[in-house]
Amino acid sequence: MKNTFGTNISVTLFGESHGECIGAVLDGFAPGVEVDEDFICTQLDKRRAVGLISTSRKESDNFKIVSGVFCGKTTGTPICIIINNENTHSKDYESTRFLARPGHADYTAYEKYHGFEDYRGGGHFSGRLTAPVVAAGAIAISALKKKSIHIGTHIKSLGGVLDREFEDLERDINALNEKTFAVLSDQKSEEMTQKILEAKESFDSVGGVLESAVIGMPAGVGEPWFDTVEGVLSHALFSIPAVKGVEFGCAFEKVNGAGSEYNDDFYMSHGVIKTKTNNNGGINGGITNGMPIVFKTAIKPTPSIYKKQNTVNFKEKTDEVLQIKGRHDPAVIHRARVVVDSVTALALCDLLATRFGVDYLGE
Amino acid sequence: MKNTFGTNISVTLFGESHGECIGAVLDGFAPGVEVDEDFICTQLDKRRAVGLISTSRKESDNFKIVSGVFCGKTTGTPICIIINNENTHSKDYESTRFLARPGHADYTAYEKYHGFEDYRGGGHFSGRLTAPVVAAGAIAISALKKKSIHIGTHIKSLGGVLDREFEDLERDINALNEKTFAVLSDQKSEEMTQKILEAKESFDSVGGVLESAVIGMPAGVGEPWFDTVEGVLSHALFSIPAVKGVEFGCAFEKVNGAGSEYNDDFYMSHGVIKTKTNNNGGINGGITNGMPIVFKTAIKPTPSIYKKQNTVNFKEKTDEVLQIKGRHDPAVIHRARVVVDSVTALALCDLLATRFGVDYLGE
Amino acid sequence: MKNTFGTNISVTLFGESHGECIGAVLDGFAPGVEVDEDFICTQLDKRRAVGLISTSRKESDNFKIVSGVFCGKTTGTPICIIINNENTHSKDYESTRFLARPGHADYTAYEKYHGFEDYRGGGHFSGRLTAPVVAAGAIAISALKKKSIHIGTHIKSLGGVLDREFEDLERDINALNEKTFAVLSDQKSEEMTQKILEAKESFDSVGGVLESAVIGMPAGVGEPWFDTVEGVLSHALFSIPAVKGVEFGCAFEKVNGAGSEYNDDFYMSHGVIKTKTNNNGGINGGITNGMPIVFKTAIKPTPSIYKKQNTVNFKEKTDEVLQIKGRHDPAVIHRARVVVDSVTALALCDLLATRFGVDYLGE
Amino acid sequence: MKNTFGTNISVTLFGESHGECIGAVLDGFAPGVEVDEDFICTQLDKRRAVGLISTSRKESDNFKIVSGVFCGKTTGTPICIIINNENTHSKDYESTRFLARPGHADYTAYEKYHGFEDYRGGGHFSGRLTAPVVAAGAIAISALKKKSIHIGTHIKSLGGVLDREFEDLERDINALNEKTFAVLSDQKSEEMTQKILEAKESFDSVGGVLESAVIGMPAGVGEPWFDTVEGVLSHALFSIPAVKGVEFGCAFEKVNGAGSEYNDDFYMSHGVIKTKTNNNGGINGGITNGMPIVFKTAIKPTPSIYKKQNTVNFKEKTDEVLQIKGRHDPAVIHRARVVVDSVTALALCDLLATRFGVDYLGE
Repeated sequence: MKNTFGTNISVTLFGESHGECIGAVLDGFAPGVEVDEDFICTQLDKRRAVGLISTSRKESDNFKIVSGVFCGKTTGTPICIIINNENTHSKDYESTRFLARPGHADYTAYEKYHGFEDYRGGGHFSGRLTAPVVAAGAIAISALKKKSIHIGTHIKSLGGVLDREFEDLERDINALNEKTFAVLSDQKSEEMTQKILEAKESFDSVGGVLESAVIGMPAGVGEPWFDTVEGVLSHALFSIPAVKGVEFGCAFEKVNGAGSEYNDDFYMSHGVIKTKTNNNGGINGGITNGMPIVFKTAIKPTPSIYKKQNTVNFKEKTDEVLQIKGRHDPAVIHRARVVVDSVTALALCDLLATRFGVDYLGE
Repeated sequence: MKNTFGTNISVTLFGESHGECIGAVLDGFAPGVEVDEDFICTQLDKRRAVGLISTSRKESDNFKIVSGVFCGKTTGTPICIIINNENTHSKDYESTRFLARPGHADYTAYEKYHGFEDYRGGGHFSGRLTAPVVAAGAIAISALKKKSIHIGTHIKSLGGVLDREFEDLERDINALNEKTFAVLSDQKSEEMTQKILEAKESFDSVGGVLESAVIGMPAGVGEPWFDTVEGVLSHALFSIPAVKGVEFGCAFEKVNGAGSEYNDDFYMSHGVIKTKTNNNGGINGGITNGMPIVFKTAIKPTPSIYKKQNTVNFKEKTDEVLQIKGRHDPAVIHRARVVVDSVTALALCDLLATRFGVDYLGE
Repeated sequence: MKNTFGTNISVTLFGESHGECIGAVLDGFAPGVEVDEDFICTQLDKRRAVGLISTSRKESDNFKIVSGVFCGKTTGTPICIIINNENTHSKDYESTRFLARPGHADYTAYEKYHGFEDYRGGGHFSGRLTAPVVAAGAIAISALKKKSIHIGTHIKSLGGVLDREFEDLERDINALNEKTFAVLSDQKSEEMTQKILEAKESFDSVGGVLESAVIGMPAGVGEPWFDTVEGVLSHALFSIPAVKGVEFGCAFEKVNGAGSEYNDDFYMSHGVIKTKTNNNGGINGGITNGMPIVFKTAIKPTPSIYKKQNTVNFKEKTDEVLQIKGRHDPAVIHRARVVVDSVTALALCDLLATRFGVDYLGE
Repeated sequence: MKNTFGTNISVTLFGESHGECIGAVLDGFAPGVEVDEDFICTQLDKRRAVGLISTSRKESDNFKIVSGVFCGKTTGTPICIIINNENTHSKDYESTRFLARPGHADYTAYEKYHGFEDYRGGGHFSGRLTAPVVAAGAIAISALKKKSIHIGTHIKSLGGVLDREFEDLERDINALNEKTFAVLSDQKSEEMTQKILEAKESFDSVGGVLESAVIGMPAGVGEPWFDTVEGVLSHALFSIPAVKGVEFGCAFEKVNGAGSEYNDDFYMSHGVIKTKTNNNGGINGGITNGMPIVFKTAIKPTPSIYKKQNTVNFKEKTDEVLQIKGRHDPAVIHRARVVVDSVTALALCDLLATRFGVDYLGE
C-alpha cells in the first residue's frame, strides 16, 4: 500500500518538506503502552542535524501527539504525531524547478505526478519525512524494550573507514543508543567525522554501511512465504531515502564460500537452543530462530552536493548544468541510523502483533 | 500477508514438498493475455535439476492450469496452476524428524507451528515451492515482453568465480534467457560448473551472487513511501529460500565513495532522458527513472550438505550430530536464477497494474 | 483484494463452473486444528442440490485437501481444497453466448473482461464457487465450535411464508445444523417447500430472507473504523451471489421507531453483562458486546428462470428474447444458508485471529 | 485494516471527540485534481448540527489541509486534513465513566481497550470522526463529478414518515445536494422535522432509512469475489456509527417475490444497454451494469437519549440507572446523509482507481 506500511500495526506517512507540517499515524498499537515524550525527543535529536557535519537547516522537531494517547498511555486507537515545518527556504528551489538533481527524485516525481508534485525541498520525498517515522518508531522501541527486545545500529563503514565488529551485543547496543554519532570505536568515530568534513570541504558527500542488531526476539516469528522477516524488514528499510542495499547476516560477504562454513550449527546453551555462528542473521526460512537479528543497510552518499553536475531540464528536455544551493548534509548515514532503528522496531512490532495478537505489546 | 504477495496482481502459494501437489493462484491478471504453455515448460526446465550439478530427485514438473485460462488466454479471473508431487522419498526424513538441519527452517517451523508442520522434505518451506512461482512468473514474463519489458539474470559470482560485467543489456538478456546455466562468459561458466562439482565431491555446497537487469520499464512507476520499487522487489526476492541480500545498482560496492561519483548525471539522448551511469539501479526516490533496473541477490550455499554437522534435537533439547541423507543440490544458484526472474516479473506486473490499471498488461 | 478475503485468516477462491476444478486456499489458520472430513461432507451436502426443489445437476462435490493438513490436523500453512467439476453441460450455453441473462453477470463480465471470460455456466461467477467456500468454512466452523462459538441460520421467510422467531438460541442453532432445509417450524418448512414447487411449476423462482445467529463470541472483537464486525461480515456476505441486503439486529424493521425502544439496556446476569433486548445484534460501535450476533441477509429469487425474458445481445447491441435452458434451481435460499454460515465463520475466525493472534483457534 | 479503508485510494482516520484534533489522511488520489475548499465547507455544513433539531454543541469544523495539496490541486501524495476540536465539555462524561450508555460503544471499548480508551464524548467512536470523512469525501465527490458521476441521498423514511420515490434521478440528486435537510417532498420534510422535534420534547430520539443513488458509473467496475461493489460499499457504510442495515436495489422488500418480477430485463436505449427495472440496484454479479447504483441504509435512532435507562457499571459489575446529560441530537439521520455520500464517493473512487489506474480521476 502506498504511504501505509504494516498489517496489524501500521504507520501512515503524510506531509511535504515545505508544507505546513508532516506527520505519521501509528495504528493498531496495543492499548496501555506508556508513551515517553522525552524518549521521542531523544530519538528525534539523533535524527536532527548536529554540528558541523550536517545541514545548517535547523528544525526544532517539536512534535505533538494529537490522538491515540490519553493520560500518558496509548489508547489502542490511531496515534497521530504532527511535526510543524519551520525555517523553510522554499525560494532555493524555484530557479531549479525543472532541473533534475542527480540521485534525487525530481525527475521521477515529475513522471509520476505530472508536474503537480510539491517540488520544494524534495516535497513528499524529502528525508525530512523520516522525522515522524522516528517519532512513531520511538513508541515502538519503548514497547519492545518492555519485552526485552533491544535494537542497536552502528556505522559499520563510512568513506572507507571501518568500525570494529560487534562484540558483546547487549553492551554494544546500550552504548550505541547513548551516542549521537553511532560508532563503537571512538578512534574510528573521529576518523569518520574527519571523512565527513573532508567531503564537506570538497563540496561533495560520502556514504557508508550501517549494521544493526536486534536481541531478544522470540523464535517462531515471521512467515515462510512472503512475509519473511527479511522481506518485511527490507520492504520497510528500502523506504528510507538513501538505502540501496539490505543484507542479513553475512550475505554478500560469505555466499561465495562453502555451505559447511555458512551453515550455523545449533547447540544447547543452558537449555536454550542457540547457533555457534550467526551467518543467517537470526533468521531461518524467513522465521526468527531466537538468535540476534543482524543486518546491514547500504546508505548512499547524500545526492545533494555543491559541485557542478550535468543534468537535464525534464520539462524542456534540454541538457543543463546544475549547481545545487540550499543547505545540505555532506553525509546522512549518522542520521539515517536512528531511522533504521525506527522502521525496524515498527516492522518487528507488526510481526509480533500478527503472531501473538494485538495485546501482546501492551501486556 | 502470509502466503499471498501483491496488491493488484497477487500470487498465493500452497503446498508442501511431499504433499499431493503444490500450486499457485495468480490473481488480478488482465484478461486477454496469451498463455504459452511451452514457455512455462521452458521456464520450469530452467528451475529443474539438471545433470550432475544438481539433486538426483527428478521431478517432471507437469503443471496443469485448472482455472483462469480459456481458449489459451487469461480470463481475468484467478489462474490456478497445480504441479503434482512425484518421486518423494519421505522416509529420508523420518529418522531426523526433530534434528534441526543447520541453515534450514526445521527448528523455526517447529517453534511457529508447534510440531504440526509437515516436516517431510522441508514441507511448505521447500525450495520446491518455487516451481509454481516460476510457472506463474512465466505468464508475467510473457505479458511484460509484449510491453517490451525484458528481464535477465546471470550468475555474477559463484564460489569466487566472477562472470563478466553486463555489456549490451538487450543482447545479454536475450542470451541469458536461452541458457540453462546463466553465465555470460563461457569460460567462467565452465569454471563455475567445476566449483559446483568440487563442492559436490567434498560433500559440501557453494553459493554466489545473481545480478539481474530489467529493460523497458517506463519511468514513474513505484511509490516514495513504502512501496518503493526497491521495497516491493526486495520483499518478493527475500521470499526465495537462500536469498540473504538484495542491493540495487552498486550499493554495497560504492556507498563508501563520494556522492559526486555515486550520483548518476542525467543527459538527453535523442529526446529521451537517460543517466550516464546507473549506480542507482534505475530507481530514484523509490520510482523508476526509465533506466534499466539493476540489482543483485546474494544466494547462500545450499544448507543441505552431506558433511557431519553439530546440531540439536529441538524436541528433546539435546546436542546431536547430524548426517544429512537424501538427494540435495551442491548449489542452487543456477536454479534460483529463474525464480529471481519470476518474482521480479510478478512484482513489476503488480506495480504496473497499480499505476496503469488492470487492463494495462492485456491491451 | 480481488479473490482473497481476510487479513490474518484469508480465503482465496479460484475456478469456473465448467473448468477442470474449483477450489479455495485457506491461509493463516492456526496449526493443530483437527480437520473433520466427514463434517466437510455434511456441510457440502447441505449446499448441494437435493430432491425436487433444486437443480437436476448433480455434483458429487468430492473434495480433496491437497495441502496444509497433515496427520488429520492443520499445519498452519495454506490449506488448498480442490473440487473437481463433473457433469457439465457446456453446450447449453453456446447458443446464448452473447445474450445477457437478466439478473446474471453475463453482461457485466463482458464489460469487465472484454469477452475473454469463461462464460460457460456463469464461469467464475457461478454459485458453484460457493462449494469450496463451504469446505473452507467447515474447517472454520469446527474451530469455532472448539471455542464454544456456534453459528446457525434459518430461512426467516421464503415466498412470503414466515418461519417462527428464534427462541432458545442454543437449541435452535443445534436443531438447524441438523437440518437440510433450515426452517425452525416444521409446518412453515412444508409451506415453503410448497412455494418452491409452485415456482418451479410456473417456470419461475422465489427468494427470501435468511436470519443467522452466532452465540459464544467474546466481547471486544472488531474495530471502530473501518473493520467493524458489521463491515467485515457484510463484505463477506455480499460476495455470495444472490445476497442483496444485510442487516444487523432489527435494523430496517425498527429504525423508524424511538431510541428508547431501540436501545438495548444493559443488566447484570450472574456476573455477566448482558442486554435485555438485542436490537443492535450483538454489536456496539462495531465491536462485539458478548450478546449473540444476529443478522439477516436478503436472498434474491434465482435469476435463472424458464419463462421467456426480454434482453439484449450485448455484442451485437440488439434487443432479443431469451428462453433459458439448462438445469436451474427454482430457489437457492435453502442452499445459500450454509454458505452464509461458512463466510460468517471465516470472517469471525479472521477477526479473532487479529484480536488474539494466530494460535488462538488452535489452542 | 483497522482505521484505514481502501486498496488503491485509501482513507485513514485518527482522533477522538475531546482530543486536540481529529483528521483523515486520503492517500492514492490522482494528482491534478482541483480541491475546492468552499465545497468542503458546504459538505461539512451539511454534517454539522443545525437549528433546533440537532445538538447544541457547535463545532466550527474549521478544517486545514496540511499536505498533499499544492497550488489548489492534489499532488498525488497523501492529503492530510485536520479539524481542531473546540467547545468540548469533557466533564459531562466524568461522572458516568464506567456506566455503559445503551446503544453506545462504552462497554465494548472497555472490553477491547482494557480501560485505556479515551472515553470522553465517545472518544474515537464519536460521530464527530465523520467530519474528516466528509472533508475527504468532498474531494472524492468533486473528482467523480468531473467524470459525470453524481451521488445523492434522501431521507427515505424518518419516524415512519415516507418521502416520495426517486423520479428523475439527475434532477432529484441535484436538488438533494442543495438541501440541508435532504427530503425530496417539501411536505414530508416538514412532517419529518416535526417528528424530530417531538422526539426531542419527549427526551427521546428517532431514526429512519436513507436511500442513495449514484448515476454515471461506467459498467464493468467491481469484482465477482470478494470485492463486489456491494461488499466494498457496505464495508464502508457500516463504519458510519448508527448504520445497522444496507440493501441494494429492492432487496428486503422484494426478495420474497418471483424471479420473473425481480429480474431486470435488458433493452437497448439509443445504443446503450439499460434495464427496464433496477431491482438489482445497478449491480450484477458484484459488478456495475451501467444503471444507477441504488441502495438504502438503516440509521438507528440516536442512542443518546435523556430518558432514564437501566444499565451497568462495567467496571464494578453492578446494575445502575443512567440519566445522560450533555448535548445530543434527537436524530442524526439528516446529518448522516452527507456521510453516506462521502464514504460512497471514497469507495467508488477506490474501485475506479483499481479498475482504471491511479491517473483515471485526474485526467
